[in-house]
Amino acid sequence: MRPIRYNVAASLDGYIADAQGAFDWIPDDSTVDFATLFARVDTYLLGRRTWDTVRDTASAPFNPGARVYVFSRTLAPGTEQGVTVVRDDPVALARSLRHEEGSGEIWLFGGGELFATLLAAGQVDQVEITVVPVLLGGGVPLVAHLPERSKLSLIHTQTYPSGMVALHYKVLAAEGATR
Amino acid sequence: MRPIRYNVAASLDGYIADAQGAFDWIPDDSTVDFATLFARVDTYLLGRRTWDTVRDTASAPFNPGARVYVFSRTLAPGTEQGVTVVRDDPVALARSLRHEEGSGEIWLFGGGELFATLLAAGQVDQVEITVVPVLLGGGVPLVAHLPERSKLSLIHTQTYPSGMVALHYKVLAAEGATR
Repeated sequence: MRPIRYNVAASLDGYIADAQGAFDWIPDDSTVDFATLFARVDTYLLGRRTWDTVRDTASAPFNPGARVYVFSRTLAPGTEQGVTVVRDDPVALARSLRHEEGSGEIWLFGGGELFATLLAAGQVDQVEITVVPVLLGGGVPLVAHLPERSKLSLIHTQTYPSGMVALHYKVLAAEGATR
Repeated sequence: MRPIRYNVAASLDGYIADAQGAFDWIPDDSTVDFATLFARVDTYLLGRRTWDTVRDTASAPFNPGARVYVFSRTLAPGTEQGVTVVRDDPVALARSLRHEEGSGEIWLFGGGELFATLLAAGQVDQVEITVVPVLLGGGVPLVAHLPERSKLSLIHTQTYPSGMVALHYKVLAAEGATR
Protein backbone atom coordinates (compact mmCIF):
# COMPACT_ATOMS: atom_id res chain seq x y z
CA MET A 1 0.00 0.00 0.00
CA ARG A 2 1.19 3.50 -0.85
CA PRO A 3 0.94 5.89 2.13
CA ILE A 4 -0.80 9.24 2.07
CA ARG A 5 1.21 11.77 4.09
CA TYR A 6 -0.28 15.06 5.22
CA ASN A 7 2.86 17.21 5.47
CA VAL A 8 2.46 20.90 6.27
CA ALA A 9 4.06 23.68 8.27
CA ALA A 10 1.85 25.10 11.01
CA SER A 11 2.04 27.75 13.68
CA LEU A 12 2.23 26.54 17.30
CA ASP A 13 -1.48 27.36 17.60
CA GLY A 14 -2.37 25.13 14.64
CA TYR A 15 -2.80 27.36 11.58
CA ILE A 16 -1.39 26.63 8.11
CA ALA A 17 -1.97 30.18 6.84
CA ASP A 18 -2.74 33.41 8.65
CA ALA A 19 -6.06 35.26 8.46
CA GLN A 20 -4.91 36.95 5.20
CA GLY A 21 -3.79 33.63 3.72
CA ALA A 22 -0.10 34.53 4.12
CA PHE A 23 2.78 32.12 4.74
CA ASP A 24 5.56 34.65 5.33
CA TRP A 25 5.83 33.51 8.95
CA ILE A 26 7.40 30.22 7.81
CA PRO A 27 11.20 30.60 8.01
CA ASP A 28 13.34 29.64 5.04
CA ASP A 29 15.44 27.03 6.85
CA SER A 30 18.16 25.72 4.54
CA THR A 31 18.82 22.78 6.89
CA VAL A 32 15.45 21.17 6.09
CA ASP A 33 16.32 18.31 3.75
CA PHE A 34 13.27 18.42 1.48
CA ALA A 35 14.96 16.21 -1.14
CA THR A 36 15.24 13.28 1.24
CA LEU A 37 11.92 13.93 2.96
CA PHE A 38 9.98 13.76 -0.29
CA ALA A 39 12.26 11.59 -2.45
CA ARG A 40 9.62 8.88 -2.93
CA VAL A 41 6.66 11.20 -3.51
CA ASP A 42 5.21 10.71 -7.00
CA THR A 43 1.66 11.91 -6.37
CA TYR A 44 0.25 15.12 -4.88
CA LEU A 45 -3.24 15.85 -3.58
CA LEU A 46 -4.39 19.45 -3.13
CA GLY A 47 -7.56 21.29 -2.26
CA ARG A 48 -8.51 24.08 -4.65
CA ARG A 49 -7.53 26.96 -2.33
CA THR A 50 -4.11 25.42 -1.73
CA TRP A 51 -3.74 24.98 -5.48
CA ASP A 52 -4.47 28.68 -5.99
CA THR A 53 -1.54 29.62 -3.76
CA VAL A 54 0.83 27.07 -5.31
CA ARG A 55 -0.07 27.97 -8.89
CA ASP A 56 0.89 31.59 -8.27
CA THR A 57 4.41 30.80 -7.05
CA ALA A 58 7.32 31.10 -9.47
CA SER A 59 8.48 27.49 -9.17
CA ALA A 60 6.08 24.62 -8.55
CA PRO A 61 7.36 22.45 -5.70
CA PHE A 62 6.41 19.16 -7.36
CA ASN A 63 8.81 16.38 -8.29
CA PRO A 64 9.35 16.05 -12.06
CA GLY A 65 6.96 13.56 -13.63
CA ALA A 66 4.71 13.47 -10.59
CA ARG A 67 0.93 13.35 -10.82
CA VAL A 68 -0.89 16.28 -9.29
CA TYR A 69 -4.58 16.04 -8.34
CA VAL A 70 -6.56 19.18 -7.47
CA PHE A 71 -10.00 18.70 -5.93
CA SER A 72 -12.43 21.40 -6.92
CA ARG A 73 -16.18 21.85 -7.28
CA THR A 74 -15.70 24.97 -9.43
CA LEU A 75 -12.74 24.39 -11.79
CA ALA A 76 -13.29 22.48 -15.04
CA PRO A 77 -12.30 18.81 -14.67
CA GLY A 78 -9.52 17.52 -16.90
CA THR A 79 -5.77 17.08 -17.18
CA GLU A 80 -3.28 19.68 -18.36
CA GLN A 81 0.51 19.58 -18.01
CA GLY A 82 0.40 16.78 -15.42
CA VAL A 83 -2.24 18.49 -13.27
CA THR A 84 -5.62 16.75 -13.05
CA VAL A 85 -8.61 18.68 -11.76
CA VAL A 86 -11.06 16.30 -10.10
CA ARG A 87 -14.66 17.08 -9.21
CA ASP A 88 -15.46 13.60 -7.93
CA ASP A 89 -15.35 12.21 -4.42
CA PRO A 90 -11.78 12.68 -3.09
CA VAL A 91 -12.19 9.65 -0.81
CA ALA A 92 -12.66 7.20 -3.67
CA LEU A 93 -9.66 8.53 -5.57
CA ALA A 94 -7.49 8.54 -2.45
CA ARG A 95 -8.43 4.95 -1.67
CA SER A 96 -7.64 3.91 -5.24
CA LEU A 97 -4.25 5.67 -5.21
CA ARG A 98 -3.31 4.10 -1.85
CA HIS A 99 -3.99 0.65 -3.25
CA GLU A 100 -1.92 1.10 -6.40
CA GLU A 101 1.14 -1.11 -6.91
CA GLY A 102 4.55 0.34 -6.15
CA SER A 103 6.34 2.08 -3.31
CA GLY A 104 5.70 5.70 -4.28
CA GLU A 105 4.28 8.01 -1.67
CA ILE A 106 1.37 10.43 -1.85
CA TRP A 107 1.79 13.90 -0.41
CA LEU A 108 -1.43 15.47 0.83
CA PHE A 109 -0.22 19.03 0.33
CA GLY A 110 -3.25 20.76 1.91
CA GLY A 111 -5.45 22.20 2.98
CA GLY A 112 -7.32 21.51 6.18
CA GLU A 113 -10.68 20.68 4.59
CA LEU A 114 -9.34 18.03 2.22
CA PHE A 115 -7.30 16.63 5.10
CA ALA A 116 -10.39 16.42 7.36
CA THR A 117 -12.40 14.68 4.63
CA LEU A 118 -9.71 12.08 3.93
CA LEU A 119 -8.80 11.61 7.61
CA ALA A 120 -12.42 10.97 8.59
CA ALA A 121 -12.60 8.37 5.80
CA GLY A 122 -9.49 6.56 7.05
CA GLN A 123 -7.45 7.53 3.98
CA VAL A 124 -4.54 9.37 5.66
CA ASP A 125 -1.61 7.29 6.91
CA GLN A 126 0.77 9.87 8.34
CA VAL A 127 0.44 13.37 9.76
CA GLU A 128 3.69 15.36 9.59
CA ILE A 129 3.51 18.84 11.08
CA THR A 130 6.49 21.19 11.11
CA VAL A 131 5.72 23.47 14.04
CA VAL A 132 6.86 27.04 13.40
CA PRO A 133 7.81 29.08 16.50
CA VAL A 134 5.06 31.67 16.15
CA LEU A 135 1.53 32.26 17.45
CA LEU A 136 -0.86 33.64 14.81
CA GLY A 137 -4.04 33.86 16.88
CA GLY A 138 -6.22 32.93 13.90
CA GLY A 139 -6.10 31.82 10.27
CA VAL A 140 -6.66 28.61 8.31
CA PRO A 141 -6.81 25.63 10.73
CA LEU A 142 -4.57 22.67 9.92
CA VAL A 143 -7.63 20.46 10.10
CA ALA A 144 -11.26 21.41 9.52
CA HIS A 145 -14.10 20.09 11.67
CA LEU A 146 -13.87 16.34 12.36
CA PRO A 147 -16.80 14.01 13.09
CA GLU A 148 -14.68 12.49 15.87
CA ARG A 149 -11.23 12.73 17.42
CA SER A 150 -8.36 11.10 15.58
CA LYS A 151 -5.68 9.46 17.70
CA LEU A 152 -2.10 9.53 16.48
CA SER A 153 1.08 7.65 17.33
CA LEU A 154 4.33 9.62 17.45
CA ILE A 155 7.02 8.13 15.21
CA HIS A 156 9.63 10.86 14.80
CA THR A 157 10.65 14.33 15.93
CA GLN A 158 13.30 16.66 14.58
CA THR A 159 14.42 20.08 15.76
CA TYR A 160 15.80 22.57 13.22
CA PRO A 161 18.17 25.51 13.86
CA SER A 162 15.36 27.94 13.01
CA GLY A 163 13.41 26.62 16.01
CA MET A 164 10.99 24.67 13.84
CA VAL A 165 10.15 21.21 15.22
CA ALA A 166 8.95 18.43 12.93
CA LEU A 167 6.43 16.09 14.56
CA HIS A 168 5.62 12.95 12.55
CA TYR A 169 2.75 10.67 13.49
CA LYS A 170 1.04 7.53 12.26
CA VAL A 171 -2.76 7.78 12.06
CA LEU A 172 -4.12 4.94 14.22
CA ALA A 173 -7.53 4.86 12.54
CA ALA A 174 -6.22 4.75 8.97
CA GLU A 175 -7.91 2.06 6.87
CA GLY A 176 -5.59 -0.95 6.96
CA ALA A 177 -3.29 0.54 9.64
CA THR A 178 -1.43 -1.72 12.03
CA ARG A 179 -1.14 -0.38 15.58
CA MET B 1 11.94 39.60 37.42
CA ARG B 2 9.63 36.66 38.03
CA PRO B 3 8.62 34.92 34.78
CA ILE B 4 5.04 34.21 33.73
CA ARG B 5 4.85 30.77 32.10
CA TYR B 6 1.85 29.71 30.03
CA ASN B 7 1.99 25.93 30.45
CA VAL B 8 -0.83 23.84 28.98
CA ALA B 9 -1.46 20.57 27.18
CA ALA B 10 -2.86 20.99 23.68
CA SER B 11 -3.94 18.77 20.82
CA LEU B 12 -1.74 18.79 17.71
CA ASP B 13 -4.29 21.11 16.10
CA GLY B 14 -4.01 23.64 18.93
CA TYR B 15 -6.97 23.10 21.27
CA ILE B 16 -6.75 23.01 25.08
CA ALA B 17 -10.23 21.50 25.50
CA ASP B 18 -12.57 19.83 23.04
CA ALA B 19 -15.86 21.30 21.83
CA GLN B 20 -17.58 19.91 24.96
CA GLY B 21 -14.87 21.32 27.24
CA ALA B 22 -13.46 17.84 27.92
CA PHE B 23 -9.82 16.99 28.69
CA ASP B 24 -10.07 13.20 28.62
CA TRP B 25 -7.87 13.08 25.51
CA ILE B 26 -4.84 14.07 27.63
CA PRO B 27 -3.01 10.87 28.60
CA ASP B 28 -2.06 10.28 32.23
CA ASP B 29 1.68 9.96 31.65
CA SER B 30 3.43 9.05 34.90
CA THR B 31 6.82 9.94 33.41
CA VAL B 32 5.98 13.66 33.34
CA ASP B 33 7.91 15.14 36.26
CA PHE B 34 5.41 17.79 37.35
CA ALA B 35 7.20 18.26 40.71
CA THR B 36 10.41 19.45 39.05
CA LEU B 37 8.64 21.36 36.27
CA PHE B 38 6.65 23.47 38.70
CA ALA B 39 8.91 23.40 41.80
CA ARG B 40 9.40 27.16 41.84
CA VAL B 41 5.81 28.13 41.04
CA ASP B 42 4.25 30.12 43.89
CA THR B 43 1.59 32.03 41.97
CA TYR B 44 -1.18 30.92 39.59
CA LEU B 45 -3.22 32.96 37.14
CA LEU B 46 -6.49 31.57 35.77
CA GLY B 47 -9.36 32.76 33.64
CA ARG B 48 -12.81 32.16 35.07
CA ARG B 49 -13.74 29.27 32.77
CA THR B 50 -10.50 27.47 33.56
CA TRP B 51 -11.18 28.06 37.25
CA ASP B 52 -14.61 26.44 36.88
CA THR B 53 -13.03 23.24 35.60
CA VAL B 54 -10.26 23.23 38.23
CA ARG B 55 -12.61 23.95 41.13
CA ASP B 56 -14.68 20.89 40.28
CA THR B 57 -11.75 18.46 40.40
CA ALA B 58 -11.19 16.42 43.56
CA SER B 59 -7.67 17.67 44.23
CA ALA B 60 -6.56 21.18 43.34
CA PRO B 61 -3.25 21.05 41.47
CA PHE B 62 -1.76 24.07 43.25
CA ASN B 63 1.42 24.08 45.35
CA PRO B 64 0.73 24.49 49.08
CA GLY B 65 0.85 28.10 50.19
CA ALA B 66 0.68 29.40 46.61
CA ARG B 67 -1.36 32.43 45.66
CA VAL B 68 -4.13 31.80 43.15
CA TYR B 69 -5.64 34.65 41.10
CA VAL B 70 -8.86 34.12 39.15
CA PHE B 71 -9.86 36.83 36.66
CA SER B 72 -13.60 37.22 36.34
CA ARG B 73 -16.10 39.90 35.39
CA THR B 74 -18.97 37.99 37.04
CA LEU B 75 -17.67 36.43 40.30
CA ALA B 76 -17.55 38.55 43.45
CA PRO B 77 -14.05 39.97 44.03
CA GLY B 78 -12.26 38.97 47.23
CA THR B 79 -9.97 36.38 48.78
CA GLU B 80 -11.02 33.05 50.25
CA GLN B 81 -8.75 30.14 51.18
CA GLY B 82 -5.82 31.51 49.21
CA VAL B 83 -7.87 32.16 46.07
CA THR B 84 -8.29 35.79 45.05
CA VAL B 85 -10.99 36.72 42.55
CA VAL B 86 -9.94 39.81 40.61
CA ARG B 87 -12.23 41.94 38.48
CA ASP B 88 -9.55 44.50 37.57
CA ASP B 89 -7.27 44.68 34.56
CA PRO B 90 -5.26 41.42 34.41
CA VAL B 91 -2.41 43.21 32.65
CA ALA B 92 -1.72 45.56 35.57
CA LEU B 93 -1.73 42.72 38.11
CA ALA B 94 0.47 40.51 35.89
CA ARG B 95 2.98 43.33 35.45
CA SER B 96 3.06 43.93 39.21
CA LEU B 97 3.56 40.23 39.98
CA ARG B 98 6.38 39.92 37.42
CA HIS B 99 8.23 42.80 39.07
CA GLU B 100 7.98 41.41 42.61
CA GLU B 101 11.18 40.49 44.40
CA GLY B 102 12.18 36.84 44.58
CA SER B 103 12.73 33.93 42.23
CA GLY B 104 9.27 32.38 42.35
CA GLU B 105 7.55 31.63 39.07
CA ILE B 106 4.04 32.44 37.91
CA TRP B 107 2.04 29.75 36.13
CA LEU B 108 -0.52 31.08 33.67
CA PHE B 109 -2.78 28.05 33.94
CA GLY B 110 -5.26 29.07 31.23
CA GLY B 111 -7.19 29.74 29.27
CA GLY B 112 -6.66 31.06 25.79
CA GLU B 113 -8.37 34.42 26.32
CA LEU B 114 -6.36 35.39 29.39
CA PHE B 115 -3.23 34.22 27.58
CA ALA B 116 -4.02 36.36 24.53
CA THR B 117 -4.65 39.43 26.70
CA LEU B 118 -1.40 39.04 28.65
CA LEU B 119 0.66 38.04 25.59
CA ALA B 120 -0.50 41.07 23.61
CA ALA B 121 0.51 43.26 26.56
CA GLY B 122 4.00 41.75 26.71
CA GLN B 123 3.37 40.07 30.07
CA VAL B 124 4.07 36.42 29.15
CA ASP B 125 7.69 35.24 29.28
CA GLN B 126 7.45 31.59 28.29
CA VAL B 127 5.02 29.45 26.30
CA GLU B 128 5.20 25.76 27.18
CA ILE B 129 2.90 23.52 25.17
CA THR B 130 2.72 19.78 25.73
CA VAL B 131 1.48 18.50 22.37
CA VAL B 132 -0.86 15.53 22.77
CA PRO B 133 -0.93 13.04 19.83
CA VAL B 134 -4.53 13.64 18.86
CA LEU B 135 -6.49 15.80 16.40
CA LEU B 136 -9.72 17.23 17.86
CA GLY B 137 -10.95 19.23 14.87
CA GLY B 138 -12.38 21.96 17.10
CA GLY B 139 -12.65 23.15 20.70
CA VAL B 140 -11.10 25.85 22.86
CA PRO B 141 -8.09 27.41 21.06
CA LEU B 142 -4.84 27.62 23.00
CA VAL B 143 -4.75 31.31 22.20
CA ALA B 144 -7.65 33.62 21.43
CA HIS B 145 -7.46 36.28 18.71
CA LEU B 146 -4.22 38.29 18.76
CA PRO B 147 -3.77 41.87 17.49
CA GLU B 148 -0.53 40.72 15.84
CA ARG B 149 1.67 37.64 15.47
CA SER B 150 3.88 36.73 18.39
CA LYS B 151 7.30 35.32 17.56
CA LEU B 152 8.79 32.69 19.85
CA SER B 153 12.26 31.26 20.40
CA LEU B 154 12.54 27.50 21.00
CA ILE B 155 14.42 26.70 24.20
CA HIS B 156 13.61 23.07 24.99
CA THR B 157 11.84 19.98 23.70
CA GLN B 158 11.06 16.71 25.46
CA THR B 159 9.38 13.57 24.16
CA TYR B 160 7.39 11.38 26.56
CA PRO B 161 6.63 7.64 26.25
CA SER B 162 2.94 8.46 25.74
CA GLY B 163 3.87 10.29 22.53
CA MET B 164 3.37 13.71 24.08
CA VAL B 165 6.03 16.25 23.10
CA ALA B 166 6.77 19.27 25.29
CA LEU B 167 7.76 22.38 23.33
CA HIS B 168 9.08 25.25 25.44
CA TYR B 169 9.59 28.73 24.00
CA LYS B 170 10.67 32.16 25.12
CA VAL B 171 8.36 34.99 24.02
CA LEU B 172 10.52 37.42 22.04
CA ALA B 173 8.15 40.39 22.51
CA ALA B 174 7.79 40.02 26.28
CA GLU B 175 8.27 43.31 28.13
CA GLY B 176 11.91 43.36 29.28
CA ALA B 177 12.87 40.25 27.27
CA THR B 178 16.41 39.85 25.96
CA ARG B 179 16.64 38.29 22.50
